[in-house]
Amino acid sequence: MPKTITFDRNQVIEDVMELFWQKGYNGTSMQDLVDVTGLNRSSFYNTFGDKFSLFKEALKHYQKRQDEMLQGFVNGAQSPKGAIVALFKGISSDITGGNQKGCMLTSCTSELAGQDERVRSFLSENMSHVVQLFSGLILAAQQAGEISADKNADILALYLFSSLQGLRVTSILDKQLEEVVDQVLGSL
Amino acid sequence: MPKTITFDRNQVIEDVMELFWQKGYNGTSMQDLVDVTGLNRSSFYNTFGDKFSLFKEALKHYQKRQDEMLQGFVNGAQSPKGAIVALFKGISSDITGGNQKGCMLTSCTSELAGQDERVRSFLSENMSHVVQLFSGLILAAQQAGEISADKNADILALYLFSSLQGLRVTSILDKQLEEVVDQVLGSL
Repeated sequence: MPKTITFDRNQVIEDVMELFWQKGYNGTSMQDLVDVTGLNRSSFYNTFGDKFSLFKEALKHYQKRQDEMLQGFVNGAQSPKGAIVALFKGISSDITGGNQKGCMLTSCTSELAGQDERVRSFLSENMSHVVQLFSGLILAAQQAGEISADKNADILALYLFSSLQGLRVTSILDKQLEEVVDQVLGSL
Repeated sequence: MPKTITFDRNQVIEDVMELFWQKGYNGTSMQDLVDVTGLNRSSFYNTFGDKFSLFKEALKHYQKRQDEMLQGFVNGAQSPKGAIVALFKGISSDITGGNQKGCMLTSCTSELAGQDERVRSFLSENMSHVVQLFSGLILAAQQAGEISADKNADILALYLFSSLQGLRVTSILDKQLEEVVDQVLGSL
């Protein structure tokens, strides 16, 4: 009877995601992947295809988790502006609490978006999605009188996206960013 | 007579810097370095030491160039606030003009600062240097009545640094950031 390989695929994707997040795509070796998955190379290739296919799966998994986090802030907030404030304050608390890993999507943009069209396309779609979420919240906040109707929601949404990238990169070097976050939120 | 290797060391560092900037540290292979320097591996190791030593030299070269650019904006401006505005507008024009490579220091922060203490220390020093430059300009602008004295110069300086990181990462995916830059400058 052939040996059956049993493993928790979701757990493997989670572990692999953490590895790529920490070391980057190019900094992660096949040996690292073999070590973290506990699979030999042959099983690895049969199960996940090549390194790039597994990276894409891990990146999508990360993006899904980020999206769930964003939606959690939206659903839990008392108002549209409150959702944006809670999101930025939540990220700020996470950083102050010691999470200085940065964002996997931000790091991936720096590492691969200029070189790989498939990655660039995925990251551009993610960016559009987040910017649209922000502009929807800003428009709703304007209708509710929480943000001045004079402001351009699309520009403000792109500004929030860019600010978030900056905070996530800067957090790798400095975990005291609460007042910078207040400054960003002051633009609303 | 032994064969003498002649090459322009500054040009090699410039070429190597472009390569590391484009592909990252881990994405650059020894073969890439051999190809771009035109040196064989033996001459390469004799001249530059290992890959990491050459990377550090390239990173310092990039940082020096960035610093000269910053100082150029400071020296060329009519006023301290004018220097900050000119710097951000200059970067914005560069991006709109098609430079979507991002910043080598920002990309290096994402790729290596969490893993290599030597790189982290270099990037932290660079960050302190830029934040100090910004806070000096903000204080001078406050004394000149260009920026409200109510604002905290240190927080605003860190905010400008973080915003710059965000703009450089976001520019890899989107080159229309003029209005986001205006939004950042609106905080002054």
